Amino acid sequence: MDFLPGKSLCELAELLGCTFVGDANHLVSGINEIHRVRPGDLVFVDHPKYYDKALNSAATTILIDKEVDCPPGKGLLVSKTPFNDFNKLTRHFSPFNPWETNRGEQLQIGKGTKLFPHVSLGSNVTIGEDCVIHAGVVIHDNTVIGNRVVIHANAVLGADAFYYQKKEGKYSKMHTCGRVVVHDDVEIGALCTIDKGVTSDTVIGAGTKMDNHVHIGHDTVIGRNCLFAAQVGIAGCVTVEDDVVLWGQVGVISDIRLGKGAVVLGQSGLMQDLEPGKTYLGSPAQEARAKWRELGMIRKLPEIIEKLK
Amino acid sequence: MDFLPGKSLCELAELLGCTFVGDANHLVSGINEIHRVRPGDLVFVDHPKYYDKALNSAATTILIDKEVDCPPGKGLLVSKTPFNDFNKLTRHFSPFNPWETNRGEQLQIGKGTKLFPHVSLGSNVTIGEDCVIHAGVVIHDNTVIGNRVVIHANAVLGADAFYYQKKEGKYSKMHTCGRVVVHDDVEIGALCTIDKGVTSDTVIGAGTKMDNHVHIGHDTVIGRNCLFAAQVGIAGCVTVEDDVVLWGQVGVISDIRLGKGAVVLGQSGLMQDLEPGKTYLGSPAQEARAKWRELGMIRKLPEIIEKLK
Amino acid sequence: MDFLPGKSLCELAELLGCTFVGDANHLVSGINEIHRVRPGDLVFVDHPKYYDKALNSAATTILIDKEVDCPPGKGLLVSKTPFNDFNKLTRHFSPFNPWETNRGEQLQIGKGTKLFPHVSLGSNVTIGEDCVIHAGVVIHDNTVIGNRVVIHANAVLGADAFYYQKKEGKYSKMHTCGRVVVHDDVEIGALCTIDKGVTSDTVIGAGTKMDNHVHIGHDTVIGRNCLFAAQVGIAGCVTVEDDVVLWGQVGVISDIRLGKGAVVLGQSGLMQDLEPGKTYLGSPAQEARAKWRELGMIRKLPEIIEKLK
Repeated sequence: MDFLPGKSLCELAELLGCTFVGDANHLVSGINEIHRVRPGDLVFVDHPKYYDKALNSAATTILIDKEVDCPPGKGLLVSKTPFNDFNKLTRHFSPFNPWETNRGEQLQIGKGTKLFPHVSLGSNVTIGEDCVIHAGVVIHDNTVIGNRVVIHANAVLGADAFYYQKKEGKYSKMHTCGRVVVHDDVEIGALCTIDKGVTSDTVIGAGTKMDNHVHIGHDTVIGRNCLFAAQVGIAGCVTVEDDVVLWGQVGVISDIRLGKGAVVLGQSGLMQDLEPGKTYLGSPAQEARAKWRELGMIRKLPEIIEKLK
Repeated sequence: MDFLPGKSLCELAELLGCTFVGDANHLVSGINEIHRVRPGDLVFVDHPKYYDKALNSAATTILIDKEVDCPPGKGLLVSKTPFNDFNKLTRHFSPFNPWETNRGEQLQIGKGTKLFPHVSLGSNVTIGEDCVIHAGVVIHDNTVIGNRVVIHANAVLGADAFYYQKKEGKYSKMHTCGRVVVHDDVEIGALCTIDKGVTSDTVIGAGTKMDNHVHIGHDTVIGRNCLFAAQVGIAGCVTVEDDVVLWGQVGVISDIRLGKGAVVLGQSGLMQDLEPGKTYLGSPAQEARAKWRELGMIRKLPEIIEKLK
Repeated sequence: MDFLPGKSLCELAELLGCTFVGDANHLVSGINEIHRVRPGDLVFVDHPKYYDKALNSAATTILIDKEVDCPPGKGLLVSKTPFNDFNKLTRHFSPFNPWETNRGEQLQIGKGTKLFPHVSLGSNVTIGEDCVIHAGVVIHDNTVIGNRVVIHANAVLGADAFYYQKKEGKYSKMHTCGRVVVHDDVEIGALCTIDKGVTSDTVIGAGTKMDNHVHIGHDTVIGRNCLFAAQVGIAGCVTVEDDVVLWGQVGVISDIRLGKGAVVLGQSGLMQDLEPGKTYLGSPAQEARAKWRELGMIRKLPEIIEKLK
């Protein structure tokens, strides 16, 4: 999320009732979680294990639970409860907004776009030209949809990120305020879900096509002209480059990168980065040729055991 | 399902037009399927293979297709078609109720609860305070929801149990009359389904969080503070103890128990009970360390085969 | 799709602005994609690799990108862009129809059928007697539903086929105009999707029961009295014979045949035809007994490796 206009370090310290380290006028131009930080952003950290990662990230303001040395040119907000205070900031600048009617405020819908019955649209939703939004689709606040996009029935865009902090055995929810951004010529199947970013955007690149029941997690960025078959599930913070093909029921763990043009066969489970242009199979997945060879060898086990007798 | 007030054995025999064995005034205080029976309950059985299980279960009244010795203190209803007569009882005491408007009767909604557009609520639904029910959610009859529960868009609570009896090649449906009970501070993702119990309750414990596209079968009881990632599927009659974590696309077979704090990695398939506190992987799942070791050994198969030559 | 009345070869050539080979009055009685062609049908082909398949198929008219020898009794339409011209024909004879209200035109609903709130019905939908259509269900144009069918909440019948042609790195969508046909006594779980055929029908046979989150692809034909557990995914153009049982999260690749009475255990992945009456397990699936034996042998690998030392 961007602050428009930007805020000063001391202004945010005052809002949170916490102390700060650095220039009082140090500019905070936005807020993001650690996977998506840019210069100008505020990030939070509340465990010594992650101090270095947060302090040395692109973020220039760190909301932290201990007064540490402040990197040059950056600012610290020192709080006893960074998670809660991060939530306080996102709630303050992006409050929860229950729209009681089928259509939120500040809705923009382009020429030639058709909406079927029982569509629910949140506030500040933008839909381009010549789109088709089928019956029962739910599009949450701040979603941006390009031109010639088709969204099939009962799909949900912009539900909350699945993002919690576990403290003393209980899960605390992060108040999420990111967006979903869908580029031109995308087709989204019936009953798909695309969650909004925690503070940044979940992005679907132009020309990408998804079959039914596909799940895309928060802050995941999908490239152009990808093809996802039914029941594919992609966790949060994944980067999928252009032209990637995922066949049915493939699962993708969070925070990995799938190289351009990679092809993943059905039911595979991805637990690490994929190289561009290669074909993968298995759970956990390997290059398909290696996996087929391995499956062939497993078929030979009876023979091997016989030989050993 | 509880009978309020309880019924007598002879009253039910009369309703079904069948004979009975035992005290005419023997009390029947409820009705349940075999996995969820309690003292006072009626259960049915229609195959000699399961007679002993039914007669010796906690149930104190048995609807059975043969006159057998009645265990002391229990009662028998002897019917030619126990399955059909069980259905007759549930239909009689919990009739199907088509609500033609968006809101059923006897609806209770607590203070501070927000309902988004296109929500459909059945009869006798109770929702606590400070909940958020997103657009397109469907909540069937008799569902009970605690406080501070969030249900994301197009989720469905209380659909019929997937429960049939196969006779002469065709599936007969059990008329199901159980409930869904969701405790405080639960979050249910977009497009999740939680089916109602056959005659008992499907329960989601306090503080449990589910991502999108999760399926919870009939009569399954989930503990407190569990975490289920997207596209997890749990069959009916499963017991999940507190603090269990299931990662994406995990599948769980019916009628098993997952011990407290067990963690199951993505795409695993559970076919038997899990011990508390351990981590599991694979389909069928094993302890994760054993599975990783096994995967490592499979990688060595080419070398083994080479040595054998 | 059938043309009623049929069209002549020269009439279609004129509509497309292309040339033809064969009798000007040659009858074209319908249009279908290659997996579902019948005598009288038009099919398209735009790659030399598939010329023979298309020319020798049951189809009697071939929309092709090169003038080739015309098989006796057949007709050719010769076009530079057969894919686009096929789309032009389906759009012409089955135009896209945005229904702005909850109910399309020409709706037929049988006696005793109950519709819950927020149901969206397309044009030319037929629903038989004594059905229950739960809240939020979306039924697209031309769908035919038999008697005593139950469709649970938020399910979607008749969404577009997931069918594209990749040209120069981009996916072009086939305008699909087939139907969904659901026979008597079928039960469809909450949040299921059954896609319409490309030009032919997706069929669910009488007495078949599906749990929640099941996906059925375009042109797939399901037999009678099948049972599909939750989160099963079946791709397009699959033939499932009678009495097949698929347990939870099974995935089925396109264009295969599952023999009568086959049983597939949970999470299995089917990549080739199944024989009737057998039980299968694994991804890729094998006969269950062979797979269990294989899993047992893998368990013995440590011992084998020990012996080799």
